[in-house]
Amino acid sequence: MNPAVPPGRGPKVRAAVLAAAIHELSERGYAAFTVENVAHRAGVHKTTVYRRWPDRDALIVDALDDSVATELPIPDTGSLDEDLRTLARSLVAWINSPSGRAVLAVMVPAAGSASPPDTTRHAFRDRIRQALPIVPRAIARGEIPAGTDAAEMIKTLVAPIYFRVLIPREPVTDTTAAAAAAVALTAARAGLFG
Amino acid sequence: MNPAVPPGRGPKVRAAVLAAAIHELSERGYAAFTVENVAHRAGVHKTTVYRRWPDRDALIVDALDDSVATELPIPDTGSLDEDLRTLARSLVAWINSPSGRAVLAVMVPAAGSASPPDTTRHAFRDRIRQALPIVPRAIARGEIPAGTDAAEMIKTLVAPIYFRVLIPREPVTDTTAAAAAAVALTAARAGLFG
Repeated sequence: MNPAVPPGRGPKVRAAVLAAAIHELSERGYAAFTVENVAHRAGVHKTTVYRRWPDRDALIVDALDDSVATELPIPDTGSLDEDLRTLARSLVAWINSPSGRAVLAVMVPAAGSASPPDTTRHAFRDRIRQALPIVPRAIARGEIPAGTDAAEMIKTLVAPIYFRVLIPREPVTDTTAAAAAAVALTAARAGLFG
Repeated sequence: MNPAVPPGRGPKVRAAVLAAAIHELSERGYAAFTVENVAHRAGVHKTTVYRRWPDRDALIVDALDDSVATELPIPDTGSLDEDLRTLARSLVAWINSPSGRAVLAVMVPAAGSASPPDTTRHAFRDRIRQALPIVPRAIARGEIPAGTDAAEMIKTLVAPIYFRVLIPREPVTDTTAAAAAAVALTAARAGLFG
């Protein structure tokens, strides 16, 4: 048993620390991130944090994974068009949230600068993987050709949204989401992901 | 006149310094970039560098602009399909070159880390702008609908290529380029950029 945390408080403490970690990343960035600041913001002692996460990188990886994994629900509306629009809108909303800004800034680091362990990158791959079932469901409904490559389709959906944020640094909106969904749907119907 | 550089050597010195700057960025990154190292690599005295560029950031901005501006020729093959494939293949080749890796690493910095001035970002906007004439030429040939938004189309072409490099960190190849060109062409023909 953890003597510093009353029974039943463990998950709450974990959630509070992860949320505080995301806020710290969002406001201060990776280089200035400290366990002390996270503990202060979460209202726990820093030894409580170190009891669960051996070092700052372990805490950051866990916080990023948690943010990417939990903040983008995968739709199942019965229509591929609506699924793609909903997923793209959720991605835009996440990118515009403090969590999204923090995660993107930390996970695309400069060469030579302080940067997080590469293991954080798998969270984005996981997110793409989680969305894949949208595609076979649409194939089963006869909306797109059998043999459509789900990963290619989901990447095509999200690419223009991430691109605008990372390269020209343009704002992304529901209009961006709808345009991305239309392109991915049209390409899939044309059999381009076959 | 610049007393340190013999007549006619100016453009050569400039090119040598900019190339050395890109190599330094590629090998050491933004944070460790120094004018001294660039001068040494280019075979000139550092005062020769400071005579042309007031500080390291001015040199970096100039080197990045030069790299982005000169290393991606804009095709005019007479066919939109071929223009898009050629442009996408050139982008892939640039991304896989030392210059491309250096520029991308520096221009997508981490929050809170040492990062270059935001003015460098306009080089990517310029690159998109340079490619725009591909689209009205295709409209004039009747290949895609009048009113196709050139910027939307070019961004859709390049987005999946940049996305793979920056987010899942997958390799990009001529296959990536061909797939991106097919999606952009199909979407344009369907009037999605109208």
